[in-house]
Amino acid sequence: MKTPGKLGYCFGVSQAIEKAVAFAEENGPLNSLGPLAHNEDVVAYLREHRVTPITMEEVLSTAVGMNVGITAHGAPPETYDTLKERGCQVLDCTCPIVRKAQAVVSQLMDGFDVVIFGDPDHQEVLGLNGWAGGAKFVGTFNDLFTAGQGYKRLGLGKRVGVISQTTQIPPLFVDFVTTVAHIIERERFQELRVFNTICPIVAARARKTNELAKRVDLMLVVGSLESANTANLATVAKPGAGADNVLIIQNADQVTAALGNWYAEAGFPSREAVETSFRIGITAGTSTPIKTVNEVVAQVKEIFE
Amino acid sequence: MKTPGKLGYCFGVSQAIEKAVAFAEENGPLNSLGPLAHNEDVVAYLREHRVTPITMEEVLSTAVGMNVGITAHGAPPETYDTLKERGCQVLDCTCPIVRKAQAVVSQLMDGFDVVIFGDPDHQEVLGLNGWAGGAKFVGTFNDLFTAGQGYKRLGLGKRVGVISQTTQIPPLFVDFVTTVAHIIERERFQELRVFNTICPIVAARARKTNELAKRVDLMLVVGSLESANTANLATVAKPGAGADNVLIIQNADQVTAALGNWYAEAGFPSREAVETSFRIGITAGTSTPIKTVNEVVAQVKEIFE
Repeated sequence: MKTPGKLGYCFGVSQAIEKAVAFAEENGPLNSLGPLAHNEDVVAYLREHRVTPITMEEVLSTAVGMNVGITAHGAPPETYDTLKERGCQVLDCTCPIVRKAQAVVSQLMDGFDVVIFGDPDHQEVLGLNGWAGGAKFVGTFNDLFTAGQGYKRLGLGKRVGVISQTTQIPPLFVDFVTTVAHIIERERFQELRVFNTICPIVAARARKTNELAKRVDLMLVVGSLESANTANLATVAKPGAGADNVLIIQNADQVTAALGNWYAEAGFPSREAVETSFRIGITAGTSTPIKTVNEVVAQVKEIFE
Repeated sequence: MKTPGKLGYCFGVSQAIEKAVAFAEENGPLNSLGPLAHNEDVVAYLREHRVTPITMEEVLSTAVGMNVGITAHGAPPETYDTLKERGCQVLDCTCPIVRKAQAVVSQLMDGFDVVIFGDPDHQEVLGLNGWAGGAKFVGTFNDLFTAGQGYKRLGLGKRVGVISQTTQIPPLFVDFVTTVAHIIERERFQELRVFNTICPIVAARARKTNELAKRVDLMLVVGSLESANTANLATVAKPGAGADNVLIIQNADQVTAALGNWYAEAGFPSREAVETSFRIGITAGTSTPIKTVNEVVAQVKEIFE
């Protein structure tokens, strides 16, 4: 059983959780705009400490003056304006790496047509889009193509700027950038600026997970299906371990069931043969608590050792 | 017989020739630092008007106070300094498109590690390299690879800027840029700036030549083997007309011999069969005089019509 070095929260998530809990202790209940981190166990822990997720619609339909937390994923400038207008006390838990990406897109790309590499429905990307003043294109690699017609025409101007959601994978970002470059060549660009806004901690964990996956028979990725980072770790593990040998599990309770399904689908002659000879790799999203990871590790050790 | 629209000098070349001839008429003999345009017929015409190519070594070994012309390709800042120190009267014929590329590389890339896409030995690229204060890498697509090892490690820093020699071909520039992007992803870049410094006139002629080549059986590219632009036009014509069916000729005198070799190598049953049914395309480098192009056109018409 192997892990790719240090796991647990990234500092953006741990800082957001600490800030929110300390605020709620001092100032009373805090509502975070969406889950503070994309992990069910974290959300449960925060509820116990009077930090509860809320939607913007709920903010708008509630009495004014509420305590509202901006999550680590950040929010568009309009959200800050709205909260201010409604007299809310705002606790800003935006991750510093995300805040830097917001600054890049609003300042260094002033006058540029902006392209964002990321999931258009993700909270962080909605925020970045707001700071960009409305990107010209938001999506991933496949979104650049139209079935049967090749490249989409993006209708970008002479100056084009590209950034990434902070939790994406660097090589996939570069694949995206190179395709954008080919598209804008046909649209006669004059200047292209690319800012590598991917979080170095996320990038390092992805790189190490990719390497570890080559040396094991099965990869367990501990995290939530809601977490962009967890999904990306599963993506980078697949070329190494094989697409069928990467399992996302939320916590230790799911280990036995996940392994059971895997045994059955892989058609192994006996469960015992697997448990004595197979190498298992474990990685975790940056919003997965280290406690959860340690429980998974203990559970796997109990089965395999 | 077809041509891809307007041929003859680009305005950079025509402006340089006019300026140099007018200067020599008023101020006496002018020495240009290298041929004013890469075309033997142009050089001969200029000699008649007292404009003669000279090397930097010759300038340095000659008496001070000479009239020296900077060619359309431009020169590094050190050249201007040297000429000033030697009391030379300088006529600057740098093409405005090249001057803009020099300004981009010296101002907008201040603080960036510069990469230049182009021929490292070409006069324009030597100039751009000087304005960049020394690029970290100069070369073409293939120069980014090491045989058997894949990508070269370029050792670039966090901020990387890429420009192109003005006479390169846009799609090849983008292929170059995308490979640089993959290399710097591994070197953990933070920002990439790409300036499309390719001359729009050169780019348009290349695009139209590429399209024309698909509709003909033989392409004649009129220009000098010394001309980067002429060589590029031959490159873009090859996918359309076929690599063996693109001939570079310098002037009308070479038409008959070039066609003779082509007939022989292509193994046609009879020369007459070709001359009555084949479609010929003619294009020309931006430093080829329109007079030369017209003579080639007349010669081809005489043979084929």
